[in-house]
Amino acid sequence: MEKWINPSLQDWGKIMARPQIGNDDLEKLCRAIFMEVQKEGDKALMKYTWYFDRVRIGNFKVSEEEMEEAEGRVSPALKEAIREAARNIEAFHLKQLPGSCEYESGNGFRCWQEVRGIEKVGLYVPGGSAPLFSTVLMLVIPARIAHCREIVICTPPDREGRVPPAILWAARYCGATAVYKVGGVQAIAAMTFGTETVPRVFKIVGPGNQYVTAAKRFAGNYGLAMDMPAGPSEVLIVADRTARPEYIAADLLSQAEHGKDSQAVFVSWCPDMLEKVEKEVKRQIGLLPRCEIARAAWENARFVVFENPEVCIQFVNEYAPEHLILNIENYRDYIAAIQNAGSVFLGNYSPESAGDYASGTNHTLPTSAFAKAYSGINVDTFVKKISFQEISEKGLRYLAPVLVTMAEQEQLEAHKNAVQIRVTNKETEKEA
Amino acid sequence: MEKWINPSLQDWGKIMARPQIGNDDLEKLCRAIFMEVQKEGDKALMKYTWYFDRVRIGNFKVSEEEMEEAEGRVSPALKEAIREAARNIEAFHLKQLPGSCEYESGNGFRCWQEVRGIEKVGLYVPGGSAPLFSTVLMLVIPARIAHCREIVICTPPDREGRVPPAILWAARYCGATAVYKVGGVQAIAAMTFGTETVPRVFKIVGPGNQYVTAAKRFAGNYGLAMDMPAGPSEVLIVADRTARPEYIAADLLSQAEHGKDSQAVFVSWCPDMLEKVEKEVKRQIGLLPRCEIARAAWENARFVVFENPEVCIQFVNEYAPEHLILNIENYRDYIAAIQNAGSVFLGNYSPESAGDYASGTNHTLPTSAFAKAYSGINVDTFVKKISFQEISEKGLRYLAPVLVTMAEQEQLEAHKNAVQIRVTNKETEKEA
Repeated sequence: MEKWINPSLQDWGKIMARPQIGNDDLEKLCRAIFMEVQKEGDKALMKYTWYFDRVRIGNFKVSEEEMEEAEGRVSPALKEAIREAARNIEAFHLKQLPGSCEYESGNGFRCWQEVRGIEKVGLYVPGGSAPLFSTVLMLVIPARIAHCREIVICTPPDREGRVPPAILWAARYCGATAVYKVGGVQAIAAMTFGTETVPRVFKIVGPGNQYVTAAKRFAGNYGLAMDMPAGPSEVLIVADRTARPEYIAADLLSQAEHGKDSQAVFVSWCPDMLEKVEKEVKRQIGLLPRCEIARAAWENARFVVFENPEVCIQFVNEYAPEHLILNIENYRDYIAAIQNAGSVFLGNYSPESAGDYASGTNHTLPTSAFAKAYSGINVDTFVKKISFQEISEKGLRYLAPVLVTMAEQEQLEAHKNAVQIRVTNKETEKEA
Repeated sequence: MEKWINPSLQDWGKIMARPQIGNDDLEKLCRAIFMEVQKEGDKALMKYTWYFDRVRIGNFKVSEEEMEEAEGRVSPALKEAIREAARNIEAFHLKQLPGSCEYESGNGFRCWQEVRGIEKVGLYVPGGSAPLFSTVLMLVIPARIAHCREIVICTPPDREGRVPPAILWAARYCGATAVYKVGGVQAIAAMTFGTETVPRVFKIVGPGNQYVTAAKRFAGNYGLAMDMPAGPSEVLIVADRTARPEYIAADLLSQAEHGKDSQAVFVSWCPDMLEKVEKEVKRQIGLLPRCEIARAAWENARFVVFENPEVCIQFVNEYAPEHLILNIENYRDYIAAIQNAGSVFLGNYSPESAGDYASGTNHTLPTSAFAKAYSGINVDTFVKKISFQEISEKGLRYLAPVLVTMAEQEQLEAHKNAVQIRVTNKETEKEA
C-alpha cells in the first residue's frame, strides 16, 4: 500500500495511474482469429475452443436438455436470491426506459424522436473459477427492457464442455433468447460475422479480460457497436470521522479479491482514519480464502490524505472511479459535485456488494477513468433513437428562405433545388 | 444506375453493399502521427499542417481578433438564417435532455440515476471547398444543452491559414468555447493528448473523412470515447403513385452532390415510378454546378421494385439508411415498422435539405448500416449517467440474505464479509 499526505497536484497523476495494457499484440491475435472465424465459421470456433479452453465442443448452442438439467441443479435458495435481485434490477432499469419527445414548431413542421431496441445484441459473460451469474442479470434484464428482439449470450465452457447451471438458469429466467458455449476472441468474432450456429449481432456488450476487450474493439472494424472498454475493477472510498474503519476495510478488500490488478483507493481529510483502516485491513485480509489475490491487490492500494473535503471531491472527479463510496456524514451535500464516477454508494450501509448483486443498480461500469465519458450499462446501452420530421407545404414555405440561404453558402445547389422545386412548382400551379 | 425488379433475398446483399474502406494503412498512419503529437505537441501539429494543408500556422487557436473580423464578414442574411436554424435545432434538442430517474424499493433502499454533461468534448468540423457551418450548429448546440463545460472545435485551415468566417461566427453564436485551426489525424491526436495550445478532451464527436474516422477509432486506444464511425452519405427513398417524380429526383441528386461515393437508393412497388424518376434525374442533373460529382454518384445509384409496401419496409430495415424519405400517401401507417434508420422524412414536403439545415433534427447520422446499433448525434451523445444508491441499516438487513447467498455462490468471500460485518456488528451492539 502506498500512502500520500497532502500530495501536490503534480503527484496526482502518479496516484491516479492505472495499469497500462499494450494493444499491439492483442490486435494481431484478433485479426488472425477474426479472419479464420469469418472464413471457417464453427470449424474455427472448435479449433480455438480446443486451443484456449482445452475442450472439444460439437454444438455450441446450449440445448433444451442442458437448460432443463440446470433447472434441477440450482438450489431453491439461490433461485430465490436471484429472483429478488432481478426484481430490484428490473424495477430500477424500467425507470430508465426513455420515451419519445417532440418539437412542434408552430410553423407547419414538427420533429420527434422515437426509441427502438437494438434488434440483435450479443452479451459476453466471462468464465472463471466461479460462475458469474450476476453478470447475466446485469446484461439480460436491461436488454429485455429495451425490447431487444434477439438477446444472445456467449460464455466460455469449462473443461467438461459445460456452462455453470446458475448461468443457464439466470439466462432463461431473465429472458435471454439463446446461450452459446464459446468464449474469448473467438466468441466476439462469431457474433461479428455469424457462423452456422452463432448468430450475427449488431452490438456486443459485457465485461471481459483484455483479450475480449481487444476483440470488441476489433469488431468495430466490421461496424459492430460495443458498450465500453473494460479494465481492472476499482473502488475509491471517501471517509470522514463518522465512518467505521472495519466497514471501509471490508469494502477495500471486497474490491481487492476481484483480481491482482484491482485498484483500491482510500481518501480522507482525517489522517488518523488511514491508520485505523490499515490496521483493520491487516486483520481482515488473513481471513479471506482468496487472500493471495487480495494481498497482491493490496500492494497496489493507495491511501491519501487531502486537506479538506473539497479537495477530496476534486480528486474523485479527476480519478473518475468505477465505484465510489461516500462514507461521510453529510454525503447529500456532495452529490451535486460528483461529476465523474460509475456508481456511487452513500453512507455507512451501502457497501459495493449491494450494487454488485441486488439493490437494483448495474454492476457493469466504466473503469480506468472512462467514467469521464462513459456511463455504466443501462437501458440506453440497448436502445437507439430515430428522428422523424413531417413538414407541411406551409412549413416548407416558412423554412425555404433559410434553407436556400444556407445551401447556397455551402455551395450545395442540389440541396437548394430540392426545396425550390417544391415551392416553385406549387406556386406555378396556384397561378395556373 | 443499377435497376432491380423483385430481386430475390439472395440479391439483397448486393443491392445493400456499401463501399468498403481498408483500415490497415490508415492505422499505421494514425499510429505515427499520434506518437509524434504525443511527444512533440504543437511542433508536430505544425509539421503535419504544413504537410497536409500546405500552410504554416504559428498559433492554432483562433484569436479574439479573428472572431471579431468574422463578425463583419458574414452577411446579415446568413446570420438571420443561422439564427432561425439554431432556434429550431435548440428547441428540438432541448426536448431530448434526459432527466434523473429513481427507484424507491419500499424496503429501506433506493437507487437513482443522475445525468451529467461530459466535461470536455472535442468537435470536428471538416474542411472542404465550402464552409460547413451547418455542422457547427449540429454539434455545438446539443453539447451546450448537455451542459458540457468545454466545447472545443477543431477544423482545418485553408491555404491562407484561415477558417471560413461563417464557421467562426456560428461557433461563437452557438456557444463553442474555442476554435482551433487544425484538421485531420493531427487534430484528433491533439485532442487526445492535449498540446501546448489544444486542450485534451474526453470525447470526440463529428463527421470526417476516412482519415478522421480512423483517427477517432485510434483515439479509443487512449481511452477517448467517440460518437460513431462515419461513412459516405446515403439516402433511401420509398415512393408510391402519389409521389412527384421531380421531387424524388431532386432529393436523390441532393444526396449525389455530396460526393462521388454517396449512396442514393430508390425503392417502390410501382414500376412506372422508376422510369419517371430516372427521366427527371437525367433532366435535372445537367443543371447542377457539381454535376460531375453527381454523375459519378449516380453511377452507383440503385433503383429497386419490390412486390408490395411491406417488402419495401423490410428492405429499409435491412439497409438501415442514414436518411430515409417516405414519399408515400399513408406514411403514418409505416412509422412503427421503421426499425433501422438515422433520420426519417415524411411526405412530399419534407426534403432531406430541411433536416440538413434548419427543421431542428440533427444531420450527423449513422451511415453504412450503423443505424442498426447507433443513433445520430443527439443530446445523449454529450451526457453520461451516474447511478447512486442509499441503503439504510434496515435496507441492508433486508438485502443481506440475498447478497450473502449470491456472493457465496460466486465464491467472493470478501463481498459477503462487507455485508455481514455491518449486520453482525449492529446486532452485537444491540445485544450489548
